[in-house]
Amino acid sequence: MIKQIDGWLTAPQGFVAAGVKAGIKASGKEDVAVIMSTVPAAAGAVFTQNKMCAAPVIVSREAAKQPYAQAIVVNSGCANACTGEKGLADAREMASFTAGLLDIDEKGVYVCSTGVIGHFLPMDKVRTGIADAVDKMDESEGESAALAIQTTDTFIKKIAYEFEIGGKKARIAGIAKGAGMIHPNMATMLTFITTDAAIAPDVLKRTVKAVADKSFNMVVVDGDTSTNDSMIVLANGLAENEIILSEEHPDYPIFFEAFLRAAQDLAKMIAHDGEGATKFLEVNIIGAASFADAKLAAMAIAKSPLVKTAFFGEDPNWGRIVCAAGYSGAAMQADHVTLSIGGVRLVENGLNVGVPLEELTSIMAEHDISITVDLAAGKEKATVWTCDFSYEYVKINGEYHT
Amino acid sequence: MIKQIDGWLTAPQGFVAAGVKAGIKASGKEDVAVIMSTVPAAAGAVFTQNKMCAAPVIVSREAAKQPYAQAIVVNSGCANACTGEKGLADAREMASFTAGLLDIDEKGVYVCSTGVIGHFLPMDKVRTGIADAVDKMDESEGESAALAIQTTDTFIKKIAYEFEIGGKKARIAGIAKGAGMIHPNMATMLTFITTDAAIAPDVLKRTVKAVADKSFNMVVVDGDTSTNDSMIVLANGLAENEIILSEEHPDYPIFFEAFLRAAQDLAKMIAHDGEGATKFLEVNIIGAASFADAKLAAMAIAKSPLVKTAFFGEDPNWGRIVCAAGYSGAAMQADHVTLSIGGVRLVENGLNVGVPLEELTSIMAEHDISITVDLAAGKEKATVWTCDFSYEYVKINGEYHT
Repeated sequence: MIKQIDGWLTAPQGFVAAGVKAGIKASGKEDVAVIMSTVPAAAGAVFTQNKMCAAPVIVSREAAKQPYAQAIVVNSGCANACTGEKGLADAREMASFTAGLLDIDEKGVYVCSTGVIGHFLPMDKVRTGIADAVDKMDESEGESAALAIQTTDTFIKKIAYEFEIGGKKARIAGIAKGAGMIHPNMATMLTFITTDAAIAPDVLKRTVKAVADKSFNMVVVDGDTSTNDSMIVLANGLAENEIILSEEHPDYPIFFEAFLRAAQDLAKMIAHDGEGATKFLEVNIIGAASFADAKLAAMAIAKSPLVKTAFFGEDPNWGRIVCAAGYSGAAMQADHVTLSIGGVRLVENGLNVGVPLEELTSIMAEHDISITVDLAAGKEKATVWTCDFSYEYVKINGEYHT
Repeated sequence: MIKQIDGWLTAPQGFVAAGVKAGIKASGKEDVAVIMSTVPAAAGAVFTQNKMCAAPVIVSREAAKQPYAQAIVVNSGCANACTGEKGLADAREMASFTAGLLDIDEKGVYVCSTGVIGHFLPMDKVRTGIADAVDKMDESEGESAALAIQTTDTFIKKIAYEFEIGGKKARIAGIAKGAGMIHPNMATMLTFITTDAAIAPDVLKRTVKAVADKSFNMVVVDGDTSTNDSMIVLANGLAENEIILSEEHPDYPIFFEAFLRAAQDLAKMIAHDGEGATKFLEVNIIGAASFADAKLAAMAIAKSPLVKTAFFGEDPNWGRIVCAAGYSGAAMQADHVTLSIGGVRLVENGLNVGVPLEELTSIMAEHDISITVDLAAGKEKATVWTCDFSYEYVKINGEYHT
């Protein structure tokens, strides 16, 4: 039984948080947050694979080597990326300063930044912001923390679920910031997830990776992977379920399911809030020779500017979709491919079925549209979420001047 | 000595061609062409790697297994892609019908189509068009042939060079159609190159591949690889230079150089004529660990919608460029990366140099802009040509309705 509830990161027991206005963002909005578990929590994280990764990612990667962690400190308005040795020292200071105020081990503090690349953090403002956030932190300040990780997302991305595990009530909650980046250097995805379920650190770390691969790693807006992407999960065990010591534990499936559902919900919200998006697209590949192939084909379709602009124009241009699958590198039987849009079969055995245009027009007018391609090469499948490509995307990313 | 001359595919000795209006294109413009060498020519070709390749590509791949060929038959207005068995029979008939009229072996006829995916060729019109083109073919009809391969390119892409080889005068000429595809299903690159230089078929076939890798394979408009891309080269030997029997022949370098120059010129024209392009961008990667890495990083930058929209907006947003190099997968030393735009160094050792904005504004206002990134990981390099991403791209590809 997994039930959606209304709540912030503080919905699971033993989590406090707050966001404050430290003056880093030119807009004057919330820009520093601290999230804390009142007891050490099993912790897992995944980070950007970008080789130009930001300083806070380097610091958080070190934190991720520890089994437990207790806090996340984050700022928006400045990515602290391409900032060299000084940037790294600043990120470390964010961790140690926070740890000092909270009287916890600094190795247990994750650091995240999002915002402009190539600028140094205004450390005076950051320190003041952290101190203010720590003062303000409690169970009722989840919303201000969520605000502080936004750049110009058009809506807050949050989710919370309650579930029963080993006879105990547990909760899992998450927030994310996505690709609603009017300020065009702010190309960062951040996700923080808290839970009071009890799970061993090594199992959690593996699970974070597995869940990321089925949620955030299946979202694409424009195919650009940022320097700062971070997903951090804290599990403090205060639900007092019997601790999950391995993937074979009978309670593991319910935990995995609740976690996956929360992560997928947030991932889909990011696609919904893609820059300039007017459509939410779900790209399903079935009949693939492997999961890797299925993802390859789905990503090629989801990233294709020709496909994305066609959906913006509400044009059922199936040729572009099968063409993208064709160049993806995935194995396929070209003369057995099928394609459906919104549940209507357009292509069968690689050939146009001849669906009347009127029938397609109403499907293409929907906001949420699913696309399913059967590669006829096996039994594996994958789903990728994305959005269309509009004038607004070009405006957002082209009209801004650094 | 390689000298550019004014001329069409018929500039080299022994080539005739013609394009005619067969009524396949709704616009009523030229849409069928035949190009022929009066004697059998050594022939080489490369084709799309797209698994959903069009029927004519299947037929031309068979032709490419032969050492010699004598003709190319091509239509625009219909891609003959996703057309199954009937489409394949139609493509074969284009070859055999042309061969019959020309009294040559049908295995020596290459077939190309470009246009809408998923429609069958109007074979009556195609046959009439081929017959008319064969009637009209001569040395003065190079221009009509070039017009017949266009879809909605905004200018004709042609090039011709004259060079001395083994004491003889030889010529090489090429035409291309590119990604100036107002009609959004017409996502095809076609290139035909003729030369009267004498070269053995096996050497030519290897050279075509090598040249394509340094020219057409280094152009990207939107990252979508079409179902119909074809590059076909005919070398009929009428220049009477001593035949080039291997890459070690002393005349090979001059042939290679003339061929490469023609191919690169056409490739750059395709980027210049990219859909909605307002800028021509040359992306140079230096200091790479391998050519593959250099190409990977250059392609990531050239394909990044964030980079392309920044150039459209004339914003010197260097963070997006190093970010794209960072996620490309190419080896790099993040803290030793350098970046120049238009010859001005913006980033050194991974850090912002602090060039005054005014200095960058004039560079970004240019039409042709070069970007150079040093990955500080080795000695290899690569150059990719592309264009920016404008409102017009979205308009061209989004406002059309199938």
